[in-house]
Amino acid sequence: MLDQKINDELASRWPAEADLLDGICRYALMPTGKLLRPVLLVESALAVGGRAEQVLPAAIGTEYGHTASLVHDDIIDNDELRRGRESVYHRFGVANAIVAGDALIFHLFRCLAECRNAGVPAARVVTALEVAAQAGIDLCRGQCLESEITENSLLDVDTYLRMIELKSAALFRSSCQCGAILGGGDAESVAKLGQYGRELGIAFQIVDDLFAFTGDSETTGKKPVSDVRNRRLTLPVLLAHEKGDDADRALLDEVFAGAVDAEEALPAVTEVLVRTGALDAARSVAWEHATCAQEALLELPESPSRDHLYSFATRAVDRVA
Amino acid sequence: MLDQKINDELASRWPAEADLLDGICRYALMPTGKLLRPVLLVESALAVGGRAEQVLPAAIGTEYGHTASLVHDDIIDNDELRRGRESVYHRFGVANAIVAGDALIFHLFRCLAECRNAGVPAARVVTALEVAAQAGIDLCRGQCLESEITENSLLDVDTYLRMIELKSAALFRSSCQCGAILGGGDAESVAKLGQYGRELGIAFQIVDDLFAFTGDSETTGKKPVSDVRNRRLTLPVLLAHEKGDDADRALLDEVFAGAVDAEEALPAVTEVLVRTGALDAARSVAWEHATCAQEALLELPESPSRDHLYSFATRAVDRVA
Repeated sequence: MLDQKINDELASRWPAEADLLDGICRYALMPTGKLLRPVLLVESALAVGGRAEQVLPAAIGTEYGHTASLVHDDIIDNDELRRGRESVYHRFGVANAIVAGDALIFHLFRCLAECRNAGVPAARVVTALEVAAQAGIDLCRGQCLESEITENSLLDVDTYLRMIELKSAALFRSSCQCGAILGGGDAESVAKLGQYGRELGIAFQIVDDLFAFTGDSETTGKKPVSDVRNRRLTLPVLLAHEKGDDADRALLDEVFAGAVDAEEALPAVTEVLVRTGALDAARSVAWEHATCAQEALLELPESPSRDHLYSFATRAVDRVA
Repeated sequence: MLDQKINDELASRWPAEADLLDGICRYALMPTGKLLRPVLLVESALAVGGRAEQVLPAAIGTEYGHTASLVHDDIIDNDELRRGRESVYHRFGVANAIVAGDALIFHLFRCLAECRNAGVPAARVVTALEVAAQAGIDLCRGQCLESEITENSLLDVDTYLRMIELKSAALFRSSCQCGAILGGGDAESVAKLGQYGRELGIAFQIVDDLFAFTGDSETTGKKPVSDVRNRRLTLPVLLAHEKGDDADRALLDEVFAGAVDAEEALPAVTEVLVRTGALDAARSVAWEHATCAQEALLELPESPSRDHLYSFATRAVDRVA
């Protein structure tokens, strides 16, 4: 299967015997997560008639970019747990985590260049380079916006959606676009797959944010309290603020101002989110975006890869971790 | 002049009205430093017959890469002062500094892609991409090696030289190589300019390290005590350790183990470095590398740019800031 192929490729590129920097990168990358972005890149390439071997380096690269953002995010959010293990900064220190994250970003771009050696015309590589670099900038802009939302307690659904579009969906979008570009797709296919990736990414992030209230660290590999402790105003919280009564709002305001202990407050917050229907409403929004993602695919020619992408969108919402 | 042109281009790309992320990037970039790497890139392109306008975006990009490493380095070294002003992390916080550094790395690569729009053939852009990405990885490896040197008190001149070749010279080297590649130079010219950049970078870093003992924050814009406080075992320290007597070595060991207050110890350390001739010896090593840099240029055809590059190598050692 495709994810196994990507996993094997990663393992062969990051052997256990390594110097400090490569050792940290390996720790951050493996065991791997869901490998969603690499799979999306390869399936997008296949969906426009491209060849998997030619775009595999770029697929690996998207995982480097994603992992870099996780490594740096965990420093920022003070998250000690990631994928059920110590986070990189917690294990290797902040300095090494900063440097390893940087290295992974550079690896992403080296991988992109590698596609030429695998047979992709240089012009396509440069176009993909532009898309990947812009997605990285978007991601950073989303992270900045997220801290502004937290600092200023911005209770605004549109701002939240714009933030996750930048912070999370940009890399999904660019993975699909880069796959389509490197695979030789025309402008229309590249645009459609980009649209698919963006909508999928938004749906995926909304569902991820729900796990703070519905998941357990056993399956998510992350402490559920982390989002509340970091005062992240995610969609269910914003919707509960709209739907709840004055007492609910007062509770949420207090908790997300950081005035009370997050661990203690979590059950009460979850109760408000369930009772007001905010969790279900947020999940509905995720479904809407997943459906938009699927609609974007319909203008592509039929293919097994198109079917795979279609079902990813269902699974992006319908999952437990 | 070239540096003015680069400065103007930067100013036009980073207007004062900006959101948080762009504002931080602008703060990190301007007022500009010496703009050495962009100038090296353009001069290298000109030296092989290329055109300045075509490579200007990539030149700007090298400044982004360099600035990103400074922004992240200042977090790691806890340096509150940079170019005579508050460092980015000190002014905007660690989280924003991490994200802004990341954004600058992505901007570096977006700039590289831009060269195609300026008329550089895509194949050259991809070759430069490979070189720039590898230089970034080298830089990170150098930073990791530097912390290993500090942690383990590695008193070894060869390890130090290998570290600065990775941490500092890699970006000088890649700037020259990318200029030559984008400018259309043949493999021989690219190699020679790469060699020039590497040797220049080593010379430059050795001299930079001397400022910890000979400079003042007025001219360098950095607290001279920073290197000693961060227990950086730079070339003059390593040479003093070799040349000094047992008492000198005991003093250096104590200071660079972090056992005494750096500020208080600095005069005594400087005295040892002067008396043992370590400062002069380190400066000689810098001259040797600057001379190697100049020799690498001799196989290029004569041109004003070749002359400029030649004189940069002299000024890299013969400077006060």
